[in-house]
Parts: sequence; C-alpha cells; structure tokens
Amino acid sequence: MTVPAASGPADLVGTGPADLVVTGCTALVHDEAERVGFAEDAAVVVRDGVIDGITTTAAVSGLAAAERIDARGRALLPGLINCHTHSPMAALRGIAEDLPVEEWFNDHIWPIESHLGERDVELGARLACAEMIRGGVTTFADHYFAMDTVADVVAGTGLRASLGQAYFSSQGPEGRAASLDFALRRRGDADGRVTTCLAPHAPYTVDDADLAATAELARAHGLPVHLHAAESRAQTEHSLARHGVTPIGVLHRTGLLDTDVLIAHGTGIVDSDLDLLAAAGGRVAVATAPRGCLKFAWDPTPVRALAGLGIPVGLATDGAASNNSLDVWEAMALTALVQKSTTGDPRWLTSRQALHHATLQSARAVGLGDRIGSLAVGRRADLVLVDLTGPHTQPVHDLAATLVHSARSADVLTTIVDGRVLMRDRELLTVDVPAVVAELEERLPALVERGHGKRIQTYDG
Amino acid sequence: MTVPAASGPADLVGTGPADLVVTGCTALVHDEAERVGFAEDAAVVVRDGVIDGITTTAAVSGLAAAERIDARGRALLPGLINCHTHSPMAALRGIAEDLPVEEWFNDHIWPIESHLGERDVELGARLACAEMIRGGVTTFADHYFAMDTVADVVAGTGLRASLGQAYFSSQGPEGRAASLDFALRRRGDADGRVTTCLAPHAPYTVDDADLAATAELARAHGLPVHLHAAESRAQTEHSLARHGVTPIGVLHRTGLLDTDVLIAHGTGIVDSDLDLLAAAGGRVAVATAPRGCLKFAWDPTPVRALAGLGIPVGLATDGAASNNSLDVWEAMALTALVQKSTTGDPRWLTSRQALHHATLQSARAVGLGDRIGSLAVGRRADLVLVDLTGPHTQPVHDLAATLVHSARSADVLTTIVDGRVLMRDRELLTVDVPAVVAELEERLPALVERGHGKRIQTYDG
Repeated sequence: MTVPAASGPADLVGTGPADLVVTGCTALVHDEAERVGFAEDAAVVVRDGVIDGITTTAAVSGLAAAERIDARGRALLPGLINCHTHSPMAALRGIAEDLPVEEWFNDHIWPIESHLGERDVELGARLACAEMIRGGVTTFADHYFAMDTVADVVAGTGLRASLGQAYFSSQGPEGRAASLDFALRRRGDADGRVTTCLAPHAPYTVDDADLAATAELARAHGLPVHLHAAESRAQTEHSLARHGVTPIGVLHRTGLLDTDVLIAHGTGIVDSDLDLLAAAGGRVAVATAPRGCLKFAWDPTPVRALAGLGIPVGLATDGAASNNSLDVWEAMALTALVQKSTTGDPRWLTSRQALHHATLQSARAVGLGDRIGSLAVGRRADLVLVDLTGPHTQPVHDLAATLVHSARSADVLTTIVDGRVLMRDRELLTVDVPAVVAELEERLPALVERGHGKRIQTYDG
Repeated sequence: MTVPAASGPADLVGTGPADLVVTGCTALVHDEAERVGFAEDAAVVVRDGVIDGITTTAAVSGLAAAERIDARGRALLPGLINCHTHSPMAALRGIAEDLPVEEWFNDHIWPIESHLGERDVELGARLACAEMIRGGVTTFADHYFAMDTVADVVAGTGLRASLGQAYFSSQGPEGRAASLDFALRRRGDADGRVTTCLAPHAPYTVDDADLAATAELARAHGLPVHLHAAESRAQTEHSLARHGVTPIGVLHRTGLLDTDVLIAHGTGIVDSDLDLLAAAGGRVAVATAPRGCLKFAWDPTPVRALAGLGIPVGLATDGAASNNSLDVWEAMALTALVQKSTTGDPRWLTSRQALHHATLQSARAVGLGDRIGSLAVGRRADLVLVDLTGPHTQPVHDLAATLVHSARSADVLTTIVDGRVLMRDRELLTVDVPAVVAELEERLPALVERGHGKRIQTYDG
C-alpha cells in the first residue's frame, strides 16, 4: 500500500510550519474497509496535536517544522490503547502469586487496599504510566479509587486516559455519587486528554438497584460506563445459580446494555448472552486481558463470537498486581495465540486482525473511535515508532507478523501523545522512575501489611 | 537465601587472579533440594571458563581480576537454554503465517528448503545466534541441515550448542550416515562448546528400521538422539491408525527410549504413553515450545504428567519460521501461563517451577546437566545479567515472579559463555547484525521462491 503522492505539498500537509514531522517510516494505515496495510517511506505532519497530513517523505522535504524525526528503519503505528487496567496497582506487582482469584482478592488485594493512601495511588500510577509509555501505550482506561490523583498523574505524564472512579454497593449511595462527581468534574481535563466514565465495580459487588441507577445517570449525563462483568465462567454459573441470569443478563435487565458500556474480561460470556449483546441499544465493547486470564486459569474472551456481532474487542492488561505487566504489545500477541489455540484454528486471528484489535477496535472500546486508533488526517497525533533493525525482527517477510509475533514492547523507541514526545529513543521525558521507585519502596512495608483483618470487600463472585 | 561468607577470600575464590568477577548482583541459586532461591549482594568468580567461586561481594573486594562487572541492581542467572530450534530458519521468519502445519510444511517450508544453500544456512544461523545472545540464551539445541556450517557459526559467535544433522528415510542410508559422521567429527568442537547428537527428523518421516539403526548407533557411539515426536494430538491419532502404536510407542519399539533421547514438542503424548516413558532405559527429556504450539493450535506439552515421572522438560522456541522468535524468556513465561490455563489450576507451575525448567531441567534436556544450568562452583561460566531497574520490573515483591512474569528478554544486559562476554550492556560483540541482514536480504528473493514444484519431503504426519 502506498500513500498518495502530493500534487503539491500544500495540498496534503497544510499551510505554515508544522509542529512535528516524522519522515522515512513505514506507516500502519487502514484502507476504506479498515484493512490494515503499510505505507512505505511515509511522512506524518502534526499541527496542534492533530495529524494534519500523511504523505510521502519526498513531499515534506521542504516543509518547515519545529521538530523533525528521521524514522528510517522504523514502523509508525497509532499508539497502543490499554482498554482495562488499574494503574495504581503497579505498586503491588508480584505481591500475590499463583493463586485462584478468590484468595488473591480476599487474602491479599482487598486487605491491602483497605489502607491504600493517595500517595500510594499517585506513585503506583506514575510507575504504571512510565511502563506504558515505554511500551508504546498512549491511552489507558483506568478503573480504580482516588481517581482525582490518577487524573493529575495523567495530566503530568502527558498520556491520554479514560478514567472511572470505582464503587461497590457496600459503600452506600456515596460510592455511586462520588463516581458521578468525579466523572463530571474531570471530563475534558488535561486539554481533553482525560475522558471519564461511571465505574461500578461488577455485578457481583454492585446490586441491581445501583446498576440501574448508574444506567440512568449515564444516559442523563452522556457518560459511558466501564465495569467488570462475566470475568470468568465460574462467575456466570454463580450468577445463574443466584440470580437466574448471567452477568450479561444483569447488565441487560438493569439497562446498562442501553448505555455505552465497556465490559472488562467477558470470558464468561456464553452463547445465550449473544442475543442480548446483539440487541444492545448502546455501544457495547469488551476489553480482553489474555495474560491475566491464562494466569487465573480463566477461559479466553470469546473474541470470535463477539466479532460475529460486530462488537469491538479492545486489548488490555488488567492491573499489574494480577497481570504482572502493563504490556499491551504482549496482549496483542497473546490474543492472537490464545484465539488460535482455543478455537483450534490456526487461520483465525491473523496478525492483521490482531493489529485491527490493537488500533480501531481498542479506540472504539474506550469511546474514542473518532479521535484515535488510526493514522489519518484529523486524528489526534498519538504515535509510536518501533525499531525493526533488531535481529529478532529481521528479515521482514510480512510486516504485520513481524509487529505482532516478533517485535516486543521494548522495540518501541519513541512515544508521542497529542504531538508531544513523551519518550524519545527509549528515554522517558515525563516520569522520573528512580525517584518514584525510591519513595515507593519506603512506603511498601506499611502498604502491604495484611495482618489487620480488614478488607474493602469480600469476593463472592 | 544468602551465600556463605568466606572465612578468608582464598577459601572460596581460589588462588591467583581471576579472569572475571561479577559483583553486587542478586544471584539465582539452587539449594540442595534444587529449590530456586536468590543470594543478595553476591559475587561470582570465573577462571578458565568455569565458575570458581560464589561468595559475597565483600569477600572479593581485594581479588585481582582481568575483568570486573559491577552488577548492582541486576539479577544474575544461569544462561538460558533453547532446547529445540532450527537456527538457520531465522532467515524464514514470517514467511508463512496463520496456517495449519501441513500447509506450512508442504506449500512453503519444504519447497523453500529444497534450494537452501550453505550460505543461507550460515546467515540464518548467525542472525539466530545474535537474537539468542540478545535474549540471554547461552546454549541451544539445533536440529537442521548443513550442520557443519552451523557448528562453524557456533564456534565464531561464542555460543554453546548441541547440534544434530537432521535426516529423513527418503534420503536413503546416506542421511543416517551423514548424521553420524557429523556427530562424530564435530563433537567437542569449539573448546568443548559443541556437543552433538543423532537427529532423525521424526517417526512420521523416518521409518522403524532407520530409527532402530539410529538407536544402535547412539548406544555404540555414546551419542544422544534429538528428534521430533508426538508433535500434536493429530500425529498421535494418525500413528495409532497407521501403525497401531503412538509415536512414543514407535520410539519404544525401535529402542530409542533406551538411548538418551530429547523429544521435541511431545504435545501428543497421551496417558497410555506414560508407562513407556517411565520404563525408559535411557535419559528421556522433552522440549516444550509453547508459542508455536499455540500458533499451530496444538495441545500443550503435558508438563504436569511428565513432572510426575521425573522427566525433565526443557524450554524451547522451535525455529523462527513457525515461532517468529527465538525468545526463551517468553517460552518460560508462556510455559507457566499455558500450564495454569490448561490444567485449570492457578497454583500449578509457579514462577520458581518455571525457573527450574529454565535452568536445571533445560540443562538436563540437552545432555549438559552436569556442566550448565546452575550457578555453582565447577559449572561452566554461562551467565546472564538482567536489569531490574525498569518501571515494568518494579517494585520487586517476589523476584521469581518478576523474572518470569514481568521481565522480558530485552532486559538481558550482558550475556557470557565460558566466561567470555558475548554481549555487554546490550552491545553484541560477536555478530555484525547489519552485515548479516544486508546479505540475507539480497539472497531472499531467490531463497523464498516456491514456484518450482519441488519439496524436500511431504508432510503426512
């Protein structure tokens, strides 16, 4: 695939000096049918945080620009999107290993979170942002507590994020009210890089009345909803036994399927849920976090069935306390590998399909389908440059396969959000990792204490 | 776990100046029961290519050494071992994607291999060695053609390898004879870094007479055997239908289970095979390559059943043409994740178990259980230093989990074989990657031509 040559540079690259020009790269582009292809020797022109032109390198040779990046030997991709995480949990990476989810929650995570402070949240989120920038993530959907603090970290690190203040029904009406308050106060923050949502924790910790009220608030305020649902087959069976409906059935009867709802995991979505999802009045999407699914021995997200309904499936890492990493690049590869394995079909979920999940589907999943997820004029300039010169990525017989199955997150050299460079040639420009780690280490002994017998909630999903 | 403090440096670190001293690291060590632990602030002393002392950093402060490496903030591990690969196939990385194995072989790989030249083999192997050194691999078990060329590459790049010249029965008696000739001529090459084996391709391409003759040659010459067997459940079913026995049954009846045999993949090992494996007279091991298994939609290697028999399961990547990478670090993580998922037990295959597979079990699998695979006095000095300071590996609550589930191959900073530094701070010292890639690119159009209608073999497993 080639980009059209400019008849004159001004036609394609706008007028006046550019803020940023990237030249010489192989750019991942989508055609009219959204098929993934690659434009050789491409150039991208950025003005005011937006992609203002995509053309050939030759066409921009004379263009004045505040910054130029020579990207020969590199691939240019839309920034990756982490569609479901809990960024502050980076502080708890590796704290509770090799456990079933109920022990992981009840004996470790929820006791620790009962005395999590805002400073812990800040440091964890900052560490997570550093990791994500290094791995080529430019947007993340975060579902946690103390989200004002996370929003401040997003503003400071330069990332883009969809943020939701999580709540349980056990908090009383205040939980839901705080989630709404956060969503209304902070949406549009950080020059529009912060978007917000309502964030009930899950159907097994939020009752039907609260879920129904959330659906009404979502419609009234034009807010999307982000929650855990059908995380595992066991949850689905438990819900059927307890409520007579699946978790997706709960979303349906409480009106949440008529909102714009992002379902985290969905590995327990069963065939009988598909009609409800197909009939949903809102924009439903699912975030798949394959590493954590494997680690908890959950079934995979039924990506093929969801694809059949046209439901976007975005890539995710979950939090680092369960997933051990925030590596969306790995989530992309694992999604392809796990889907081949569990469907028994090596032809399914090709590298190009995986890249479609990583780009347009993930953008739609976080409610930003018209702003990010592709390299196209008018989209926000969220860009990553990937080194292709390493021995592990050579030779390149099939660039889509190289990107999905050979390249690694560490091959991301440069990460750009809204045209601002957050990492250049592996150097982080907006997070001081040693300082974050040093302060976090001082706080960890108190934070990870689990002998107090308290927990914020009890897992009974 | 701590290393014993030296009563005097001479007790633990030998006499005279060292060739290499690594200080300040956290060293992965095995206790008497082979449990994986970590020694803080450890030092390793190397003389004549061998680990001559493991002690505290303080104990070696006055020791003269030709080279010292300050490894504070880094983990020191035994070099990783790739227990089954086809290194020259790095030249074919990504050439045939998203296909069932029979199409992959018959329409792509075996046609291409019908006109593979020695120079292609050399360039592919050199590229593979570069990738493996960068990923912390110090030993690989290679099963391919033109292995004299590969042995020369091993000698030049400084790696350690177990090499076998592959053959099919379709080659006539010459195939087997060439495999033996190679094994006898080259064993002990490169200062002992090259070991050799007999390498029949697989029970579906080598007939019983050839397999039985191979078993006799192995016993007569003290050579191990490395072959593909029970690669998939479909192969096992096919073998039962055609021969009335499983592929493992074929190895039994041809005497191969009474040799030291390394079985690649073994994903089609079924319950009825376990008695045969338990009764094997030779040292049987299995190499598991989880990425390729997922990609071909094969079942996983039954690691838990094999562990129950005490059979070592080593980690592997297969060739880059199917696996897309030679990343043993990823194979370690995937082995843990896939085993949890497919056994349905998140407690199974802990990070420490995964590290045991990566170290001692892999060493045994390639027949080097007494020479490599642990940091212990008298073992060869095959060492890798892993950076732990990245945001994705912090904080460290559980170093085993950090290494398996958070660290990546790109965190390997320094790779050492026989005390010789092959990569220092990510700089490769023994392979010129741009030169290899440039020459390979010139040769690729002719190499990948598949229109000639020839193939070296037909897949009918």
